[in-house]
Amino acid sequence: MTIRYPNGKLYTPHTSVQKTEKKSKSKDLSFSNRGKTLEDEINEANDYYIKRRLAIIHKKPVPVQIVKVEYPSRSAAVIREAYFRTPSTTDYNGVWNGHYIDFDAKETASKTSFPLKNIHEHQMTHMQQVTEQNGVAFIIVRFSAFERYFIVPYEVLQKAWQAMENGNRKSIPFSTIEEEAYEIPTSYYPRIDYLPIIQQLIVEKCCGFESEEK
Amino acid sequence: MTIRYPNGKLYTPHTSVQKTEKKSKSKDLSFSNRGKTLEDEINEANDYYIKRRLAIIHKKPVPVQIVKVEYPSRSAAVIREAYFRTPSTTDYNGVWNGHYIDFDAKETASKTSFPLKNIHEHQMTHMQQVTEQNGVAFIIVRFSAFERYFIVPYEVLQKAWQAMENGNRKSIPFSTIEEEAYEIPTSYYPRIDYLPIIQQLIVEKCCGFESEEK
Repeated sequence: MTIRYPNGKLYTPHTSVQKTEKKSKSKDLSFSNRGKTLEDEINEANDYYIKRRLAIIHKKPVPVQIVKVEYPSRSAAVIREAYFRTPSTTDYNGVWNGHYIDFDAKETASKTSFPLKNIHEHQMTHMQQVTEQNGVAFIIVRFSAFERYFIVPYEVLQKAWQAMENGNRKSIPFSTIEEEAYEIPTSYYPRIDYLPIIQQLIVEKCCGFESEEK
Repeated sequence: MTIRYPNGKLYTPHTSVQKTEKKSKSKDLSFSNRGKTLEDEINEANDYYIKRRLAIIHKKPVPVQIVKVEYPSRSAAVIREAYFRTPSTTDYNGVWNGHYIDFDAKETASKTSFPLKNIHEHQMTHMQQVTEQNGVAFIIVRFSAFERYFIVPYEVLQKAWQAMENGNRKSIPFSTIEEEAYEIPTSYYPRIDYLPIIQQLIVEKCCGFESEEK
C-alpha cells in the first residue's frame, strides 16, 4: 500500500526504528505521526469518528484522589495535593450503532510477543464483565518495533491469561497475535482507523460466520 | 403505588423534608440513606449491579489537567498543581445486556420544575450523539424537596431545550416530569434501583409499545 503525505511525498514506515516502552510515552508536539503516542493516535481516531458521527468513543480521565484544593480569589481552583489512583476499568469506552465498545491501549517494544504483565488483573475482570453483558471488549496493541497495530479480542487474552495462571507462558507469541488478532492497517488520517475492524469483529461474533483467513 | 421495605414496613416518602442544593451535597458517613448525595446513591446501585453481574456501569473520574507532579523517593507520586477541566461527556456510562447506557445525575431543590441550567450544552450534544448511535441517554434527577427520583430520557430534555432556545421557559415543569419521565421508586438497598426502569425504557423504545400510563 502506497501512502503519501498531502504534499505528495511518499510515506515510508520506519520499521527499523525501535522505541523503548519509556521513550514511546514521551510526547512530540510536531505534526509528524512518528512522535505520537498510541494514546494520541487513538484520540485522533476518536475525534475523527465523533466529528463524522461514526461512533462516540472517549478516553476516560485519569483517576486521581484529590486531597487538597485551594481557591484563590478571582481565579480557578487549584488542586495542590492529589494522588494517582488505579483505574477500575479500561481507558476507552463508547458506542457504535448500539454496540457497547470497551478497550484499553497497550504498547510493547518486544518483537516476539505481547507480555501479559502489560494488563492488570482488574482490567481482565472488567473486560470479562463487559463480555458477559454482551459488550465488545478488547485491547489495541502497538508493536512499536514494527509499527504494527492489532485489535486483540478479550477471548484471545482470556485464553492466554488462563494458560499463564496454569503455569504456562506469560506472553502471547507474536505469531498468535498475527493469527488470532485483527490487524489495523495504518493510513494517513486517522493513522489507526480501528472502527472498521471492530465492525468486522462484531459481525463475525453476532452472525457466527468467520472470514476465510480466520 | 405502594412500596414496602423488605421487612414489610410501608414506605412513606418524606415529602415534607426540604434540603438546599448545598446541604444535599454534604457527606454524611452514617449508614442512613438520608445524608447520601445522589452520586453516592448511584454509586451504591452501580456496585450492587456489578456484584450481581446485572450491569456494568461506572462513574467516570473527574477530569483534571495535571501541571506539576512530584516524585518523592520511596513514596507515591504527588500531584502538586492541577486544575479541574470541563467534562466533555456525561458522568456515567456502561453496558446492560448489549445496550450502551449513558447518563448524568442532577439534583434540584426546586419544587415546581427542573431548571435546564443544570445541564451543560456539551452534555446535550453528547447525549444527542449517543442517541444517534442507538445508545440509551438520559439524566437521573433528584427532586430533593420531595426525595423523588426520575429518569428523564434525552428526548424529553431535547424538546424542552429546543423550546428554551426558541425563547420559551428555561425549565421543565414538575408536572411534565411526572408525565413524561420514569419515576424510580426508592427502596432500602440499593436506595435507587434504576436498572429496571432503564430496561422498561429500552423495551418501550425498541418494541414501539408504551405502557397504559404513558
